[in-house]
Amino acid sequence: MREIRVNLGRNSYSILIGAGILDKAGTLFRRVAAANSVMLVSNPTVFGLYGKTVVESLQESGFKVTTALMPDGEEYKNMDEVIKVLDRAVEANLERSSLIAALGGGVVGDLAGFAASIYQRGIDFIQIPTTLLAQVDSSVGGKVGVNHPQGKNLIGAFHQPALVIIDSRTLATLADREYRSGLGEVVKYGIIFDEDFFYYLEDNAVRIREKDETCIEYLICRSCQIKSEIVEKDEKESGLRSILNLGHTFGHSLEKLGKYKVFRHGEAVVLGTVAASYLALDMGILDQAEVKRIVDLYRSLGLPVQFPDWDPREIYIGMLNDKKVLNQRLRLVLPRGIGNYALIEGIGEKEIIAAIKKAQEIQ
Amino acid sequence: MREIRVNLGRNSYSILIGAGILDKAGTLFRRVAAANSVMLVSNPTVFGLYGKTVVESLQESGFKVTTALMPDGEEYKNMDEVIKVLDRAVEANLERSSLIAALGGGVVGDLAGFAASIYQRGIDFIQIPTTLLAQVDSSVGGKVGVNHPQGKNLIGAFHQPALVIIDSRTLATLADREYRSGLGEVVKYGIIFDEDFFYYLEDNAVRIREKDETCIEYLICRSCQIKSEIVEKDEKESGLRSILNLGHTFGHSLEKLGKYKVFRHGEAVVLGTVAASYLALDMGILDQAEVKRIVDLYRSLGLPVQFPDWDPREIYIGMLNDKKVLNQRLRLVLPRGIGNYALIEGIGEKEIIAAIKKAQEIQ
Repeated sequence: MREIRVNLGRNSYSILIGAGILDKAGTLFRRVAAANSVMLVSNPTVFGLYGKTVVESLQESGFKVTTALMPDGEEYKNMDEVIKVLDRAVEANLERSSLIAALGGGVVGDLAGFAASIYQRGIDFIQIPTTLLAQVDSSVGGKVGVNHPQGKNLIGAFHQPALVIIDSRTLATLADREYRSGLGEVVKYGIIFDEDFFYYLEDNAVRIREKDETCIEYLICRSCQIKSEIVEKDEKESGLRSILNLGHTFGHSLEKLGKYKVFRHGEAVVLGTVAASYLALDMGILDQAEVKRIVDLYRSLGLPVQFPDWDPREIYIGMLNDKKVLNQRLRLVLPRGIGNYALIEGIGEKEIIAAIKKAQEIQ
Repeated sequence: MREIRVNLGRNSYSILIGAGILDKAGTLFRRVAAANSVMLVSNPTVFGLYGKTVVESLQESGFKVTTALMPDGEEYKNMDEVIKVLDRAVEANLERSSLIAALGGGVVGDLAGFAASIYQRGIDFIQIPTTLLAQVDSSVGGKVGVNHPQGKNLIGAFHQPALVIIDSRTLATLADREYRSGLGEVVKYGIIFDEDFFYYLEDNAVRIREKDETCIEYLICRSCQIKSEIVEKDEKESGLRSILNLGHTFGHSLEKLGKYKVFRHGEAVVLGTVAASYLALDMGILDQAEVKRIVDLYRSLGLPVQFPDWDPREIYIGMLNDKKVLNQRLRLVLPRGIGNYALIEGIGEKEIIAAIKKAQEIQ
């Protein structure tokens, strides 16, 4: 089992990564749990696969476990479901020292974490991410929240987990599309932060597609390390942390225009990164060969790079409702070569639309 | 104008206290506001009295103001109203750098502050409390939140304001019952923290009842100082801060049993403090003469001390649902003489019921 420590003063915590560690959930929970009451938030699919293992392990360690299941899907990441989870917490008599744990993907983690952040003004919570996307990105860093009809993650909080437990074997049951969607976020770390990691992904694309266990464990670990390093420097996203949003402003707009049904989050981020790369090309901070490397890596990992042929202006307008907008002028993170980034403010409509059009030309 | 600084590292802020300072709201906001967009949350009553003054002053200072009015009353301090405020914030295109300001009593402040704490994972907010209770207690310290059908303030966050603006003249339009209810919290500071202040309140009871301007300004100021001092030492209530809950666990139960219609919050706290005093008497940390001094001060300030003749066991059960419960054993703050406190854990049903019965004997 590997352990990564996220150093955030009194909000510090560990990320534990290993194959088959769900069996030991109870012992691992005991590292941080003072009280005995745990509420496990999950969805029926994931709970059907791993619920029994986790619950039994927790009970063996003396925990009293209640469960709150929410439907599967991004469209349920909303306030109504938060309120149901809170009602369940009240019903189960959860106290300030009790724990909420999230067993599932990003939707479950974001929602359960948000519920934990506002129940009795914040109680501890543990992330047990079961999708690659959640393992390499959303479960680490404390961003929790839900969507608003007008935009993704508009309602939320910063609430660091007390512990993150990543069992890489859960990826065995993950649908291929979900798995690849997670790889989109993995590539992101290479692009903005670590050219060596980008090389690694290029060199091992086939093994990664085949879910080679050693490869997977390494890429989860390296992704969590990079994310932790960035979060440690800027917990509440006043600066550096926003580089993690590469491709996200474009991506959120695509997700929203597709009513969260056309694209998975990771897929939308990939397409957004392609558009961001063309924008970077226009600005002279990325060259044509680098754009090609990025697109080629996505392709070799099996990620779709075909941009939808929707009206570019509508995509642009969708971007304006994103949280990162400052005085109605866009502020975006762009790749600066491979392994580095640039934060650009005040990007106008014309440049954005030009970049979208170029991305739309990719076959 | 008096200024009290609350030192909480990067969450530090000022409390400004003065007669008639609402006129200068715009200039005062400029001390902390980077952006120009403000959403003012209020209720129709308070907004009718002071809305125009505040809005005009803000506009003069270049702010673009939108308003969100919520109905008046504790029963509206709930998630439905939070969601309405959030919808309004989205509609008004509030960004991360925008402000939410609360103009009103504790309900408006708690709810608007909570909305600010979860809108885009937290934006700045300014408190403009217009009731004595909010001025001396709820607007300071960053506790924000709403009620759950099963208990008060079960949903919430810690989100310090960026500024608190207290115009003591707003008390002129406050109903007598509201004003006296606020005095309940003022007396609390004397009981748990400052015997000299308790003496001051005894000596000036008549002037305080008559709303003497100098007296009021002093007692607001001293109350905010004491509260700030306690919050600075324990922002998130892991210890010391809980002494501010004197009378609150009893009080919350009374409020709830009365469906938030029989007692004002401050009134319930007064009755709760009386019960807590009898508990302290039983435990030998308060003597009979001190209990009498507390009850007499309440009386001389015009506060009702008559405990409802409800079933003591029901009151006790209501206390168990309170946030301060640890493993179903009550943990209470009690007066230890005048000007000091004791935190007692594991208090059982028998002692609680005995104290309630004694409080019920007061005529």
